Amino acid sequence: MFICEGFATPAADQPLAPFRFERRDVGERDVKIDILFCGVCHSDLHQARNDWRNTTYPCLPGHEIVGRVSAVGAGVTKFKVGDLAGVGCMVASCQACAACADGLENYCQNGFVATYNGVEPQTGRTTFGGYSEAVVVDEGFTLRIPENLELAAVAPLLCAGITTYSPLRHWDVGPGQKVGIVGLGGLGHMGVKLAHAMGAHVVLFTTSPGKADDARRLGADEVIVSTDPAQMGAHGESFDFILDCVAAEHDVNAYLNLLKRDGTMCQVGAPERPLSVAAFSVIWRRRNFAGSLIGGIAETQEMLDFCAEHGIVSDIEMIDIHDIEAAYARMLKSDVKYRFVIDMATLKDTRPTA
Amino acid sequence: MFICEGFATPAADQPLAPFRFERRDVGERDVKIDILFCGVCHSDLHQARNDWRNTTYPCLPGHEIVGRVSAVGAGVTKFKVGDLAGVGCMVASCQACAACADGLENYCQNGFVATYNGVEPQTGRTTFGGYSEAVVVDEGFTLRIPENLELAAVAPLLCAGITTYSPLRHWDVGPGQKVGIVGLGGLGHMGVKLAHAMGAHVVLFTTSPGKADDARRLGADEVIVSTDPAQMGAHGESFDFILDCVAAEHDVNAYLNLLKRDGTMCQVGAPERPLSVAAFSVIWRRRNFAGSLIGGIAETQEMLDFCAEHGIVSDIEMIDIHDIEAAYARMLKSDVKYRFVIDMATLKDTRPTA
Repeated sequence: MFICEGFATPAADQPLAPFRFERRDVGERDVKIDILFCGVCHSDLHQARNDWRNTTYPCLPGHEIVGRVSAVGAGVTKFKVGDLAGVGCMVASCQACAACADGLENYCQNGFVATYNGVEPQTGRTTFGGYSEAVVVDEGFTLRIPENLELAAVAPLLCAGITTYSPLRHWDVGPGQKVGIVGLGGLGHMGVKLAHAMGAHVVLFTTSPGKADDARRLGADEVIVSTDPAQMGAHGESFDFILDCVAAEHDVNAYLNLLKRDGTMCQVGAPERPLSVAAFSVIWRRRNFAGSLIGGIAETQEMLDFCAEHGIVSDIEMIDIHDIEAAYARMLKSDVKYRFVIDMATLKDTRPTA
Repeated sequence: MFICEGFATPAADQPLAPFRFERRDVGERDVKIDILFCGVCHSDLHQARNDWRNTTYPCLPGHEIVGRVSAVGAGVTKFKVGDLAGVGCMVASCQACAACADGLENYCQNGFVATYNGVEPQTGRTTFGGYSEAVVVDEGFTLRIPENLELAAVAPLLCAGITTYSPLRHWDVGPGQKVGIVGLGGLGHMGVKLAHAMGAHVVLFTTSPGKADDARRLGADEVIVSTDPAQMGAHGESFDFILDCVAAEHDVNAYLNLLKRDGTMCQVGAPERPLSVAAFSVIWRRRNFAGSLIGGIAETQEMLDFCAEHGIVSDIEMIDIHDIEAAYARMLKSDVKYRFVIDMATLKDTRPTA
């Protein structure tokens, strides 16, 4: 065991604050990563506030982790001390089910172990995430980080990047296809960049006309203001694939009706209340309403390598960890372009939390 | 033009009654079929009662038509006088769009012409369906009818058969797969027979425990009473494909959660009100919630040939056309095993309508 500093919350109605805890020592197959940057995902906020009613406290969020390897177990082959390394949403899975055998640990039939708020198989304790100075993870759940990208801006690829990359790849997005991305937030802005790099004709749907210029800068070929029926109507039955990144309630039928025959609309945002799907929206053109959950470790590495090749990172705003609650407040207003990333060096500052 | 007898209704609140009308003469590519039997689909009732608010009156339903060819145009190659022939839900399509080019006239981008309540391209008049003594149809929308099957029981294959066959084929149902059929009505009982003949392990979901014996007789390997959480829970994440044949409101999430990773649940019943789909039902295992609409002409022929090979027909109750309103009343109570078929010879009877 070693002592580790981080930021955690003791209860749903309490702010995150400095927190000292124990991490397990590096085992045979483990990698210790000194964390340099950690992205701030909406899930962090949901979990800290117990929005999903399954939070174990204290809760220490963060699953978009990048840093440098500071120790490796004797059996580790992927890293040596000093290498860059990353950790995403998972730190373990059963390794015995069909999903794990297929390299899709994200769909582990026995449930993957989440990077925070999971149960660490090595110790039986609650997992603590990346809002901390270091993490110890089985090398099977670590990622190699390309050296040619801005490191802080790589962090959000570990969740927002793979969550959008995986469905774009699974449904074979590529040249000659018209692909819609719904919503320009943390997920959506990665969807635009990745679909563009895959060679698709990318259309961004937004309720905010003011986001059009930014969307084009990020790689959108067209921008549709989804509240304008004329703009929506002009694109009827023309899309091969639509990636829905919106977590708020919205009318999915308006988008389903823009799909061609056999087209798929995939949900990666997770609205709290069920979505209302008209049977005829799917029957009419044999359409699919699907979902996708992050991605497997192998495809996360593939995504990082793809991003390195295409020079893709997240657009970020760097924050001091003492400002995490202010960042959460801004996230609730969708006031971030497009992902907050914590500079973990600020953990050592002694200034009071904002 | 020639005069034709049939049963039609002049308004949503009027019963079907004897009706005399004109049909076009046989053109170059047309086939005239003297109708022997016509199946009674729920759509007939919806259209007659204007439930979809798009009915043109008078309305003459019927799109599960079998009979004998009594005349052919000079350009017809598929039939000679005296052959058995069938007509399903469509009598024309644009023949110019990508769907028609793919042989999927059912998804014609310009809208297929329905066998009744459509607009006949040859005349510009409303199409009249199979509750009549004869029909004239472009040979491209006629089907060859196997001689080895009970003719009256073949009629429902033209709608209920292809509506279930097409999605089972499209999603590659076959040996080694566990396939669910939801609801044992006109569509569901065909789904059970067809999925069984395709070699799948077939599970019938029903709210009526009393249907279990019948379901097994039709080909189900297992029967699950869907209102019993214990029975449902025992099958979590085990289905490759589920065909949902229920048109009433019901909880689709209960079924989505029974699908394996990448499994598909396909809607062929069309509930009037939107279905409530929890985002996590599809996100959790990358599941698909899809729909399917009848089938193309080529695959309808393939389905008929498949049924001939496997000795499959619909379970039917034969009725006199004068009893059509009584049949509709029983359909509303789901009191039919499993499809009414009109013996069109009864059209010539002079007894008053019931």
